[in-house]
This record gives sequence, structure tokens and C-alpha cells, in this order.
Amino acid sequence: MERTLIKELEKYIGKEVTISGWVDVRRDHGKLVFLDIRDRSGKIQVIFPSANTTAGANAKTTRPEWVVTVRGIVKERPENMRKEELNGNIELDGFHVEILAEAEVPFELGSELNLDTYLDHLPYTVRSQKARDVFVIQATIIEAFRASLRRREFVEFQAPALVGGDAEGGAAAFKVDYYYDQQAFLATSPQLYKQIMVGAFERVFTTAKIFRGEKHATTRHLSELVQMDFEMGFIQDHRDIMDALEHTMRDICADVGEKHADIFKRFNLDLPKLPKGKFPTLKLKEAQDLLGVAHEPDLEPEHERHLHEWALREHGSDFVFVTHFPISKRPFYTFEDPDDLGHTRYFDLLFRGLEINSGGQRVHNYDALVERIKQKGLDPAKFAFYLQAFKVGMPPHGGCSTGLERLTARMLELPNIREATLFPRDLNRIDTLLRVDK
Amino acid sequence: MERTLIKELEKYIGKEVTISGWVDVRRDHGKLVFLDIRDRSGKIQVIFPSANTTAGANAKTTRPEWVVTVRGIVKERPENMRKEELNGNIELDGFHVEILAEAEVPFELGSELNLDTYLDHLPYTVRSQKARDVFVIQATIIEAFRASLRRREFVEFQAPALVGGDAEGGAAAFKVDYYYDQQAFLATSPQLYKQIMVGAFERVFTTAKIFRGEKHATTRHLSELVQMDFEMGFIQDHRDIMDALEHTMRDICADVGEKHADIFKRFNLDLPKLPKGKFPTLKLKEAQDLLGVAHEPDLEPEHERHLHEWALREHGSDFVFVTHFPISKRPFYTFEDPDDLGHTRYFDLLFRGLEINSGGQRVHNYDALVERIKQKGLDPAKFAFYLQAFKVGMPPHGGCSTGLERLTARMLELPNIREATLFPRDLNRIDTLLRVDK
Repeated sequence: MERTLIKELEKYIGKEVTISGWVDVRRDHGKLVFLDIRDRSGKIQVIFPSANTTAGANAKTTRPEWVVTVRGIVKERPENMRKEELNGNIELDGFHVEILAEAEVPFELGSELNLDTYLDHLPYTVRSQKARDVFVIQATIIEAFRASLRRREFVEFQAPALVGGDAEGGAAAFKVDYYYDQQAFLATSPQLYKQIMVGAFERVFTTAKIFRGEKHATTRHLSELVQMDFEMGFIQDHRDIMDALEHTMRDICADVGEKHADIFKRFNLDLPKLPKGKFPTLKLKEAQDLLGVAHEPDLEPEHERHLHEWALREHGSDFVFVTHFPISKRPFYTFEDPDDLGHTRYFDLLFRGLEINSGGQRVHNYDALVERIKQKGLDPAKFAFYLQAFKVGMPPHGGCSTGLERLTARMLELPNIREATLFPRDLNRIDTLLRVDK
Repeated sequence: MERTLIKELEKYIGKEVTISGWVDVRRDHGKLVFLDIRDRSGKIQVIFPSANTTAGANAKTTRPEWVVTVRGIVKERPENMRKEELNGNIELDGFHVEILAEAEVPFELGSELNLDTYLDHLPYTVRSQKARDVFVIQATIIEAFRASLRRREFVEFQAPALVGGDAEGGAAAFKVDYYYDQQAFLATSPQLYKQIMVGAFERVFTTAKIFRGEKHATTRHLSELVQMDFEMGFIQDHRDIMDALEHTMRDICADVGEKHADIFKRFNLDLPKLPKGKFPTLKLKEAQDLLGVAHEPDLEPEHERHLHEWALREHGSDFVFVTHFPISKRPFYTFEDPDDLGHTRYFDLLFRGLEINSGGQRVHNYDALVERIKQKGLDPAKFAFYLQAFKVGMPPHGGCSTGLERLTARMLELPNIREATLFPRDLNRIDTLLRVDK
């Protein structure tokens, strides 16, 4: 008999059904055995009489996480037993249990765990309601990002992960043993490639893995992460990029809100607050003046949190743009603002007090770009492949890059980015238990 | 004045417009200068009188790939000058040219090039109509793959690229210098991770970069590629996976056909041929008997091409499944068919004579899996992270994996997979000119 998903059971009251899933909870009440069965769509309580039936005996042997197929009749619960939740008004009278797999769990699913224990047991803990909620939201975010850009004629491309050099000329890149004793690197950004692609499609995006070998051990850094990048040509300046990004963020928030109200309820969280007008925007110096702090070249995490409080109070916004960082601290391809020399047409987007996106206008003139590479003490010859794109004519362009894990983490107010990362890689961890000896 | 996309110009006959793009062709006819301007949406011819106007003088100085903004009046062409193509019936009377970037090209775009020259100049050659067609199709394929699976409740997840060990226990994995002199590897497959994720979501997919360090130098192997994987729980056997894959392939072909009839026309190719019934399926031995070749453990490329001829002739199908490969040659997680011992519930999907997908049912019983790992001479302790998922109860499951570049290459009948790969990495190449000295 064909399997019915648990979320569909309400349609079958009085009928016989077959369901499959995991034993979420098993309660043995002597004469009756109760199994809460969980599948990808929901949960349902199944009741078995324990005496003199094979089904009851089988139900009794099961334990949490055993995988079973159950047959039963869907029936309405007594009025006083109904609950306000999926299938709160129905249950199953079970008459058959087939055991597909046995299981032995290290602790109860959904237990309060410290982060290391959670991560050490990921193949199990990822089944918890909380983890599933996080990664369902993440799947929606990445798809909403792509869909939002596709609607505006951006073309997806696949950026390489293996590169010949460190593109940004700054971030620590992991080294790879390539063929014939040659050295390659893992990409720290799809930056150079997405600029090249502007020459072909004008508007491109990629959701690429990037790798950062810095020895950070913070709650917001990872060694492997997903960057959601876009880049577009024929812009006036960085404000076109900010508009395109704001459009994308509003689309992502709309999709997440529409599909996952239940998850925000379980997390006891509000949806991201979006201002009626445009996202509030401050130049770096303005932001520092507002906070009464010194004119440093960048913001401290504490400053970012204070700017969030300001944006929320003054604009009802969880998002705030900070622009015009000093050019000395930014990569060679960053465009200097001719109206504010020494500062860049570059921005960070803060979401709930954390930088989740950086971007801006890029240098598009070949000679100017070569000059900027030299000024940074880098060798233009090493960028010859990239520079080809500029030699053959590049329009004014720019783009930006959003960290998927950071956005997910702030969306659900998770304190550590590792909770928003399946299989996080950092200074100390690559699936501890998968590690092989050297 | 706001930019109008070239594909929209027909709506503006008699009106003034501003367009931006690249000079595709420039023809100087003495009194008149003709510029064909190309943007992401199409091409249009613009006519400038060359004498005594700044616009004409500017137009005259331009060369191929210069980036320009042009103002002009849209007008209908004389009846006898019209062509059967986009904007074949209109042209622009230009009166203003702004030069956004100059350019110097190594050869004419769209020239016949050998593969190495094409790849050495990718930042330029990717702008050719042919390359843009290939990568637009590729973007549609990857999105159609995701959309098809999302409609059937598969959840996207992000598989790691950095791993602690070589998952398949076979493929040559690239080594990475991780922190503190530790060794990591680049993933050769998301296999173990997608199986783990079945425990959380039952149905998952990922479009992940994978890396293969074998010293292959063929027209169908790459060192970095995109694998489109899915995995699903609660199956009867491998045939459920084949059905799900066939569904996905039909969705991909439908999307590609619907959106890109123009590209297939330019390539002078038919859309993939799909049988009225299910994709034809042969056991490996049956396929070998049909071809009159020996019962080897795998098919040779030549055999795959002959099977395509057979499938086309007998079933009108560009697709054919081959199943039941001998277990000795397959990875440890492959499920043995109890009705055909020594052979696996494993399949390859051939598309136009090339294997583009492999998959099947997996071992889901913990003890059986540990036993199979040992039989392959591997150490179960090294798979402890993965094995956790099985210790806590895994349903019968399976999945498969499609190579994005191979599928793209066969879709457009490109002889070398490198033509279907942006920035291909192989034995000899990582963007030649981006390579840095050691």
C-alpha cells in the first residue's frame, strides 16, 4: 500500500493508511503502546494495543529513531484531547509495524547541548527540529537570492574553487598540491571571475564556496563558506549596486516570511524589520560621529551592534548601509569616489548588527587598474588573465557578496555562525571523526 | 536619459532612445559610419553621418569591443533591407556617442580557434555568441535541476568541499595544507554528506563542486567540476531513483527546449529525443550481449556510443539506463541485488552516448555497511562520523549524481567537456595566465 505523508493524514479520517518514518517518542503505558512517528512532513501519534498482537509486540520493541512503516486507521481524537498543532485533532489506530532499521541514540534528540557536542554528533543532531528549521531557512535564502536575480536578468555562472593565485592579494589562501608538484590555491572569493563574466552577460551571479585560511577563532568566521555574489555592468556608481542588493534582500525576507512563519514562531522571533523608505545609509565617518567614536578605517563589532540599535530606533530597520571606507584598506579593484577622494564607492551592509555583505563599484579602466595593482605592491603580470577582460573593454560595473551562513545566523539570531553551517570547517574541525591519520 | 535594452527598441519606433553596449562591428563607409552595438539582450545597427558631427567623429574612432553609450532615433528600415532576425526591421539614427571604455582585441570575436587559444583568451572569447549560448544553457540546466527537485519536496543543502578523508576510498583526492600542518582533502563527491542528510530531510539535493586528482587527459574528464546530486529515503529499490532521475531529466529538457529554441537553431541541433514510454533500460550483461562484446565489469566509451545508436533506433531515445554492474568494482555503500547476487542495484545513465549520471540504492543497515567497508580493505574507524547516521537509524535510500559539464556538453554536442566549463581545470591548466610562481 502506498505511503501517505503524515501532513496529509487529515484527509483520510476513517480510512486505512500506511506511513513511514522515525520513532520520535515511544511511550509504553502497559496495555497500550504509543509511538510518535516523524517523517519529513510532520508527526502523528499511533496507538497500539500491546497484548496478543504482533503489531503491539513490534511497537513495544522499538526505540527512538528506529525507522518503521506503520499501517493504521486515521481517527479523530476525543474533543478534550485535541491540540493546536499539525495533526493535533487526529491519531492513528495502528495494526501493523514493519521495522526498516534499528537505532541506538547517544542522547535524546533536542537535548540542550553545548556546541562541540552538537557538532561532534551532527549526523544525529541535524535531525532535531531546531537544526532542520535552520537549514530549511538556509535553503530558502539561497534560492530566493538566485530567483530574485534571475527575475532581473542576471545569469548564474560557476566560479572556480581552484585558482592559480590569491585573488584579493590579502586573505590567507589554503594551498593545494596540484599536479606535477605544482601549487594551486583555494579561491578566497569569486571576485575576479565575476568581473570577467560581466563582459559576457553584463549581469551575473554565483553561489560559490570560498575558503579562508586566516587563523580566526570567532563566532562569525569560517574556513569554508558559501558566498552569494552578484556583479552588474553599466552602472552609474555604487548606489546602483546598493539598490540591487536592497531589492534582493527584500525579496529574500519576503520569501522567508511567506514560507516559514512557523519557524519564526518556534524561534520566538520577528521577521526582519524593513524600513518603509530605503535602507538607512551612513558614510563611515558619519556613522563614527553618530556613535562618538574615532575615525578608524573600519567598524568594530560593537559599533556595528550600536548602528543596528540606531537604525531600528530611527528607521525601523534591521538593515543599515555604511559607505565610503578609506581606500587604503580596500582591495585594488575598489573605485575611489572622485567627490570624496581617499574614500571608496564601497559599502558594507549590516543586518541586525553584523556585516553580512560588502560591495561597491570597481575600477573598469585598464590603465587605472594596472596602476592600482602596482600601488598595492602586487605584480600586474600575475593578473594577466584577469586583465584581459579590461584590455577588451569593460563597462562601469560593480557588485557585492553576501555570506550565506552569516545571513542565516542573523535571520534566526543564532549566536554562533557554526549553528548556521552544515559541517563547519574551522581552525579545529573538519568533521572531527572523519579525519584520517596522515 | 535612461538606458533602453536593445531587445526593447521595436517599441520605440520614431522615438529617441539611449542604448549602452559593446561595438560588435564598425564599418566606415566614408560618408556614413555604421556601428553594430551589442548588449546582453541583442544587437542593433546604428548609423552616423561622419562629416561635421562630433557623434560621427566619435563613432569613427571606435573599434570592436569599445564600450559606448549611444543616443539616437529608432527608425524602420527600408522594405528591401529588412532581415529575419531580432531588430532586422529597425535601425538607429545616431546623434551622440559617449565612450565608456576603449579596447584592443587580439583577434575577431567568433573566429575559429583551436581549444587552447580559446581557453587562453577566455576573458575575451567567453563573449562570443557560441560561448554565451553554452553558458546560458548551463545556467538553465542547473536551475531546472534544482526546481524539478524542489517541486518534489527535496531540500537543498551545502555539501563541504574540504574533507578529512577520501570518501569514496578510490578516487585520487587533492591534498590541502590545513591549519597547524594538518592535512585535509578536497571532496571527490558529496556522497557521504548527502546520505547523512537523508536522516534529516529524507529528500535532499546539492549542486556542489567536486575535485578529482586522477591524471586523466581526455575530452570528458576535469579536475574540478559541478556535480548535481540528489538522495532520497524510503525507496523500494534503485528503480525509484531511476524514476526520480528520469523525471528530473525530462524537466531539464523541457525547460531548455522552452527557453532556448533559438540556441538549438544556431547550433543546428535537435532537442534531446525522449521516448514516449520510460527511458530504455538494460542490465550490463544484456547491453554487452546486444553489442556482442565480452562481459567486462564496465562499458568502454565505444560501447556507450553504440548503445545510444540502439536506443535511438529502437526507442527514439537519447537516454538509456544500464544497470547491475558487478559489485566488485563499485564503492562500499553500493547495494547488492538479492535477486542477482554479485551485481548491484546501481545504474549509469547514458545521454547521447556518454555516461552523465551514476547512482543507485545504498546500504542502509549499520552492520552490513561496516562489513562492506571492511571488505573493501578500508578502516571503519575512519568513517565513524558518517557511520553515526546509520547507528541512529537510516531508511532504505539511494540517489545519484549528474555531471553538469558533461550534460551541457552533450546537450550541445560539444566534442570536449572543456567547452562546457567556464575556466576548466585539468592536468595542465588553471587559467594559464593566472598561475603564480612558487
